[in-house]
Amino acid sequence: MDYAEEAMKKHYEWKGKLDIVPKMGIETRDDLSVAYTPGVAAPCLAIREDVSKSYDLTGRWNTVAVITDGTAVLGLGDIGPEAGMPVMEGKCVLFKAFAGVDAIPLCIRSKDPDEIVRTVELLAGSFGGINLEDISAPRCFEIERRLKESCDIPVFHDDQHGTAVVTLAAMINALKISGRKLEGVSMVISGAGAAAAAIAKLLMSIGLEDVTLCNRSGAIYDGREGLNPEQAKLGAITNPKGKKGSLADVMRGADVFIGVSAPGLVTGDMIRSMAKNPVILAMANPVPEIMPEEAMEAGASVIGTGRSDFPNQINNVLAFPGIFRGALDARASDINDAMKIAAARAIAGLIPNSELSPGYFIPAPLDKRVAPAVAEAVKEAAVSSGVARIGSYRKSTRRGEICEGR
Amino acid sequence: MDYAEEAMKKHYEWKGKLDIVPKMGIETRDDLSVAYTPGVAAPCLAIREDVSKSYDLTGRWNTVAVITDGTAVLGLGDIGPEAGMPVMEGKCVLFKAFAGVDAIPLCIRSKDPDEIVRTVELLAGSFGGINLEDISAPRCFEIERRLKESCDIPVFHDDQHGTAVVTLAAMINALKISGRKLEGVSMVISGAGAAAAAIAKLLMSIGLEDVTLCNRSGAIYDGREGLNPEQAKLGAITNPKGKKGSLADVMRGADVFIGVSAPGLVTGDMIRSMAKNPVILAMANPVPEIMPEEAMEAGASVIGTGRSDFPNQINNVLAFPGIFRGALDARASDINDAMKIAAARAIAGLIPNSELSPGYFIPAPLDKRVAPAVAEAVKEAAVSSGVARIGSYRKSTRRGEICEGR
Repeated sequence: MDYAEEAMKKHYEWKGKLDIVPKMGIETRDDLSVAYTPGVAAPCLAIREDVSKSYDLTGRWNTVAVITDGTAVLGLGDIGPEAGMPVMEGKCVLFKAFAGVDAIPLCIRSKDPDEIVRTVELLAGSFGGINLEDISAPRCFEIERRLKESCDIPVFHDDQHGTAVVTLAAMINALKISGRKLEGVSMVISGAGAAAAAIAKLLMSIGLEDVTLCNRSGAIYDGREGLNPEQAKLGAITNPKGKKGSLADVMRGADVFIGVSAPGLVTGDMIRSMAKNPVILAMANPVPEIMPEEAMEAGASVIGTGRSDFPNQINNVLAFPGIFRGALDARASDINDAMKIAAARAIAGLIPNSELSPGYFIPAPLDKRVAPAVAEAVKEAAVSSGVARIGSYRKSTRRGEICEGR
Repeated sequence: MDYAEEAMKKHYEWKGKLDIVPKMGIETRDDLSVAYTPGVAAPCLAIREDVSKSYDLTGRWNTVAVITDGTAVLGLGDIGPEAGMPVMEGKCVLFKAFAGVDAIPLCIRSKDPDEIVRTVELLAGSFGGINLEDISAPRCFEIERRLKESCDIPVFHDDQHGTAVVTLAAMINALKISGRKLEGVSMVISGAGAAAAAIAKLLMSIGLEDVTLCNRSGAIYDGREGLNPEQAKLGAITNPKGKKGSLADVMRGADVFIGVSAPGLVTGDMIRSMAKNPVILAMANPVPEIMPEEAMEAGASVIGTGRSDFPNQINNVLAFPGIFRGALDARASDINDAMKIAAARAIAGLIPNSELSPGYFIPAPLDKRVAPAVAEAVKEAAVSSGVARIGSYRKSTRRGEICEGR
């Protein structure tokens, strides 16, 4: 199938991928008086008395905004807010199809982090969570950080953390196959953008010590000139051996390669220069850093890519629907590292050790078991890490209350 | 039925009145690849090339935002943004039920006109129209005026213009029954807020000359002290005879009374002091300025109220669904006076002269003929007044193009 051609045809047919449907009919005067005036005054007043009732009396408990500024859409770059909408609508489709979440696509006509942050803050009372999407680095780091500080609902930049969660899930199983432990491996990440940063940080939070990021100019190391502030921070906490040089240089002897960069950057010889039976996750889209066949011939133990037509697709859809389902079910105030790690373990855990193989170490994107398993694990992690606001939980001092926002 | 009690019960059951439903299933890899990546890149690129394609390839053509700051919700006043959401969701239900419009409820956590205006401007690329709702006067005037200037999509404050349209519709038929023409009548409006201002302006735009507004302190006249800027402007263009004094004073000898104020302000004696067979629209909610029976006993020719349990309910639901349907169908850049007047005439015209009576001069809120008739008339008026962007139309120089907004 020519996906581009078929997608154009279907998008012209659909004219929007979402339908907004009332849960009740409006056929009689009583219908109107209960769903709208005068009856609707009663739930309004109940929420005025206790704003947390907005989770019981409106759709907020189940509603996530999918928000972009259109600056880093897919691999297409800065195409503008309206042009990002087909992706946002698609994301909303997946939220509902995989996890029953009502998601609303919004595009913002500004690239100014101050304006984007303020817009989302002002809308936060309408939603139970915020999924940031396709916002370019390094602006995405500041925008997400500030929103996590100021909002009383979870804010999650999927290009960073969704990718990191699914990468961690794949890594857990891939390392089992290659007989390694995360603590001991030497890892190289090709890429130094939003996804690379989030992958490095999440893996380091559970024990990875030796990881080096590479951008087009080579290894990121502490004190390297010309880095943006986020990369400079990464340089200070990664690359403990102070490696310098090209991607080929830093890959020599490494156990694991993760690519979130560009097509064809890795050759068979570079794989052969790594430690024996290395783990390769080559996730550049649509063409990976190295094709699976070539990597396996060069001695890779396992390889995953971003492509649906190869085995072991590392696809964010494994993570974000279940993560938000779990966060919403816990009425969480945040999506924290504990919840992300729980999500990754839940994804990885769906494949028993006996079934793990180089051809199957990550569930398929359409595996219906994934979202419910992730949701359950994330909800539990929200409770045990103190950010849940329903169920039995330790109340966080900082984020445990729904603030009124005005 | 106790509407408050029933509404609480139902709102707890519904947990949100809207469901967001994908138009396609995601069962196969091909489904995923067409609705989402990689296929979705094709419509994204098409919109980047021509941003007007966002009306063909996303839901924008049919999507309206229903936006409040929660400062003037129903008659409840400033109850906060989250507490306004049950009304906004209800409005979205009516948009879909009556006119097939996909409407998204948004509440904004700010009362600052600058912040509200900027938030809506930044989101305008996501929608085909903006319905402002329950924003207090006089802020609502500034917010709407600025947004109409800066946005390339229609912005419509329903509390003003929806009310004005339905009032005009009722007036057209009521004046027929009482044998008067709008040009010659002497009219008093009790109230000087958003609805009163919009009613006065719309009726003056089609020939009304003698109208006087009254607030709690009495008649609004040119130069009166203590008025807000909007009321001062109204004072300068209304009340041509320079009436002063109380509501009772200015009603003496008047042909028409319109109430958008407070319960019980009008007595039978005040009706008796008016011209013979006066027209009374007493729309205070839930209790009108005067009860219908008392007004008729005092000699009123006809009376309409805001109540569903009396005849002749002046209900905005007669106007806003069809107005937006027509504006969206024309891909209008604005909802202008010509479109509002067309809507009012379409509503009034559904009752043939032979059926007009004091007990029936405005269609019932659930009359299914209304929205399609309004939509058709509004679409035609959009075309003939030059704000339509599809169909055969004269292209407006100022608003005729969809700007890219960045």
